[in-house]
Amino acid sequence: MSQTNTLAAFLAALRYDDLPEDVVAYTEELFLDWLGSALAARGQQPIPLFERYAERMGPADGAARILVSGRGTSAYFAALVNAASSHLLEQDDLHNSSVLHPATVVFPAVLAAAQDLGKSGRELILAAVAGYEAGIRIGEFLGRSHYRIFHTTATVGTLAAAVAVGKLMDFDAARMLHLLGSAGTQAAGLWQFLRDAADSKQLHTAKAAADGLLAAYLTADGLTGAQDILEGEQGMAAGMSSDADPSRLADRLGQRWAILETSFKYHASCRHTHPAADALLDLMWREGLEAEAISAVTAHVHQGALDVLGRVTVPQSVHQAKFSMGTVLGLIAVHGKAGLAEFQRFALGDPRVAAFRDKVRMVLDPEVDRAYPRHWLGRVEVVTVDGRTLRGAIDTPKGDPDNGLSRLELEDKFRRLLAFGGYPADDAGVLIERVWRLRGTDDLDNLV
Amino acid sequence: MSQTNTLAAFLAALRYDDLPEDVVAYTEELFLDWLGSALAARGQQPIPLFERYAERMGPADGAARILVSGRGTSAYFAALVNAASSHLLEQDDLHNSSVLHPATVVFPAVLAAAQDLGKSGRELILAAVAGYEAGIRIGEFLGRSHYRIFHTTATVGTLAAAVAVGKLMDFDAARMLHLLGSAGTQAAGLWQFLRDAADSKQLHTAKAAADGLLAAYLTADGLTGAQDILEGEQGMAAGMSSDADPSRLADRLGQRWAILETSFKYHASCRHTHPAADALLDLMWREGLEAEAISAVTAHVHQGALDVLGRVTVPQSVHQAKFSMGTVLGLIAVHGKAGLAEFQRFALGDPRVAAFRDKVRMVLDPEVDRAYPRHWLGRVEVVTVDGRTLRGAIDTPKGDPDNGLSRLELEDKFRRLLAFGGYPADDAGVLIERVWRLRGTDDLDNLV
Repeated sequence: MSQTNTLAAFLAALRYDDLPEDVVAYTEELFLDWLGSALAARGQQPIPLFERYAERMGPADGAARILVSGRGTSAYFAALVNAASSHLLEQDDLHNSSVLHPATVVFPAVLAAAQDLGKSGRELILAAVAGYEAGIRIGEFLGRSHYRIFHTTATVGTLAAAVAVGKLMDFDAARMLHLLGSAGTQAAGLWQFLRDAADSKQLHTAKAAADGLLAAYLTADGLTGAQDILEGEQGMAAGMSSDADPSRLADRLGQRWAILETSFKYHASCRHTHPAADALLDLMWREGLEAEAISAVTAHVHQGALDVLGRVTVPQSVHQAKFSMGTVLGLIAVHGKAGLAEFQRFALGDPRVAAFRDKVRMVLDPEVDRAYPRHWLGRVEVVTVDGRTLRGAIDTPKGDPDNGLSRLELEDKFRRLLAFGGYPADDAGVLIERVWRLRGTDDLDNLV
Repeated sequence: MSQTNTLAAFLAALRYDDLPEDVVAYTEELFLDWLGSALAARGQQPIPLFERYAERMGPADGAARILVSGRGTSAYFAALVNAASSHLLEQDDLHNSSVLHPATVVFPAVLAAAQDLGKSGRELILAAVAGYEAGIRIGEFLGRSHYRIFHTTATVGTLAAAVAVGKLMDFDAARMLHLLGSAGTQAAGLWQFLRDAADSKQLHTAKAAADGLLAAYLTADGLTGAQDILEGEQGMAAGMSSDADPSRLADRLGQRWAILETSFKYHASCRHTHPAADALLDLMWREGLEAEAISAVTAHVHQGALDVLGRVTVPQSVHQAKFSMGTVLGLIAVHGKAGLAEFQRFALGDPRVAAFRDKVRMVLDPEVDRAYPRHWLGRVEVVTVDGRTLRGAIDTPKGDPDNGLSRLELEDKFRRLLAFGGYPADDAGVLIERVWRLRGTDDLDNLV
C-alpha cells in the first residue's frame, strides 16, 4: 500500500472522539486567530477586488458568508474571499517543518462548506484537524526543493482545503483518494510575484481554498481523480520537487498530532523574519541598546529565508515591507515592536526605520540552515557605534508551541486585529466567547 | 526588454484590421469545430457534475450560456462547463509544436466573457487569435520536458484563456503583463490521472478556461501580478521545465500566424495515435489487407507518445480507449475508422478489436522523435499472417494544415458531432450558417 493510501485511509477513519482534548482546544485557538486575521483585512487592497468578483460571478445570496462584508453567497465564493482576506496581514498561523500556513487555506474552505451544508462546530473541528494533518505531512513530503520555487501554502493548501471539506462530507478512503487526485492536479502557485510586490499571495490562498472546495464538491458527486497524485511518476513530486520524502506522508498518523506543532504569529511579518527579530529584541533589551547605538546588523539565516526575502531591498508597499528583513528589524529596533499598527504607520515613511534598514544584511548560516525547517533559530550579530560586536540568539521564536501565546495573549491579539479592521470594541468580546464554545455550536451560520 | 514584455506589447497592440483574411476565416473554422465538440458532449460523464456544480455555486441566470443545456449563468461557470465539455470526446483541435489544444481553453473563456460583456463576433475573433498566438508560443517555450509531467493544455491553457479575455477587454501592455503573472501563477495540471482513467482531463480544461477568465476579470479591476512569470527565477520555466527556450515567446510576432498551424482532429482519439493510424490505414488500403491477415503491428513513435499512451494497456472506459494505441489501430483495421461512433460501439466490447489491440506495440523511433513536435510522422511496421513484413509511412497526418479538412469536411464533422449529441438534424445547418457569418455578428448571446 502506498503512503498516500495509508494517509487517505487514516483521514477517512478519523473520528471526533479520537481527538485528544488538547487538539480540540488548540484547533479552537487556531480558529480564533484565523478569524481575526480574516476580519482585520476589511477594505485592504486587493480584498475588495475579490468581493467584487464574487458579486459578479456568484449568486446574490447564500448560506455561506463573506466575513469582511457579512454578505451571503455560495460556498465557493465565501472560501475564495475569506482565504484572500486571512493571509493579507501576515498574522495567520504557520507550521514550521512544512512551511505551510494551514489556517488561511483550511478554515475558509471548511467554514464555507459547513455553513452551506449545515454542519456543527464539532464537525468543523474534526474536518479542520484532518486538513491540517494532511496538509502538513504533504508539505513535509514535498520538501525544501519545492518551496524554493513554489508557494507551499498555495500548492499544498489546495490539498489541505480539499481534505478538510472532504472530511466534513464524511468521505470514505476511496473517495478521499479521488479527492487528493483532483486537488493535487490543480495545485499551483509560484514565488515569482514577490519581487514585484504583486497581489498574488492573496490570489494563491483564495484559489487554494476555493479549488480545494471545488474538488471536494465534485468528488462528492462522483468525479474521479488520479490514485497516486503525490508519489506517482507524473504526479506532484515528479513535477514539483527534487527531494520528496514519501515516509513523511504517513508519519505517526494518530500519534503525532501535527496541528499541535503550528505556530501563532507574534510579529505582523513574514515568519522568516521572526527568529532574527526575536534575537535582536532579546539582545537590545539585555544590553540596553538604542537603535541609534547600532551601526550594523547581520542576520544569520537559513536558505529559505534568502529565497523568499532576498529579492526585497527597498519595499514599495506595506505588504512587501513584511518581507524586508531590514524593515522588520528596523521596526523592532526603533519602535520595539513589528505589529500591525507599527507596519501601517512606520514601515514605509519613517526615516529612522529606513536608516536602520540599510544597516541590515542577511548571510546564510550553516547551523541555522541545518536546523531548518524543524527549528527556526534566531541568530544576529550586532556591531555598535562604539565598536563592540554583540551576539543575540534565540532557539524558539515567540509563538512556537514551546514558546506559545496564552489564551489571554491570543485574545489580546484578536482584539488588536479587530480594532485594526475598524470593528466596534464589543464585537471582539462576543466573538471570543463564541469561538471558545465552538465545539458546542450547532449554528455556524450565525457564528459571525 | 524580456521576451515576455515583447509578447505582451504585441498582444496589446494587435488590432482586428491586422489580421489577414485567412486568419479570420481559419478562426471561424476552429470555432465551428470547437462548438461541435462542446455540444456533442451533452450528457456524457463527467459533464453533468460540472453543470451541477455551476447550479450550486453560481447564479440562477446570467448572460453567459452553458452550451450543453442552454442555461444562463455567469461568465465563470459558463467557461468552466463549456471547457470541460469541449475536450471530452477528443475531437477538438491541436497545435503540433506546442502540443497544446487551444480551442478547448480559449473559446469557452472568450465566448463566456463576450456574452457577459456584450461583445461582437469581430471582437471575439481578435481575442481568440491573441489567445492562440500567446498560448502556442508559451507552450513551445516550456518545451518537451514540461509536457512529460504537465498537461500543457491545462497549464498553458490558463494563460491562453486569460490572454483571450484580456484582449476582449482591450488590455494595454502593462495590464497584459499583470494578467500573464496572475494566470501563470495558477497554472496546474499533471498527467498522473491518465493511467487511472480518471476524469481530470475535463477538470483541467474546465479550470484552465475558468481560471484564465478569473485572472482577466480581477486584472481588469486592478489586481497586480508577477512581471516575469514565464522567464523569472521563480517562475513557470524555473519550476516546471528543464528545456525552456525564451526565444519562442516572441517568435516572428505578427508575421508567423501560429493559429494557422493548428490541426483539426480527424480520428476521435488522442492525437498521438493519429500518425500511426493514418500510416496503417494507408498501408492496408494500398496492400488490400484485412485485419485478420495481420499478425503484428509495431508503431514507431516519438517519446511524448510513449509518455502519454504508454500506461494504457487494456482500456477501462471509452475515454481511456482514446489513449490506447492498440485500440485505435484495432478500430482502423477492423472498422476502417476511429470516429466517435466507432469508439462508442466497438472500443470496449468488440472481440476483433481487442484481438487486434493485443498485436500492437509501440517503440521509440529516433527519426520520428527528432522530427517531433514540429512534424508528427506516422511509421508502422506490419507482419502478415503469411509472413511478409510491410511498412506504412505518412509525413502529414490528416487534419494538419498541409493535409487539412475542407469546409465541407468540417461541416460533415460538425453534423456528426451534433448527431452524436442527440440534437435535431436541422440544428447543425442553422449553427453552421451562423458561424460562417461570425465576423459579422453583433449578438453572441443568441449564437447558440
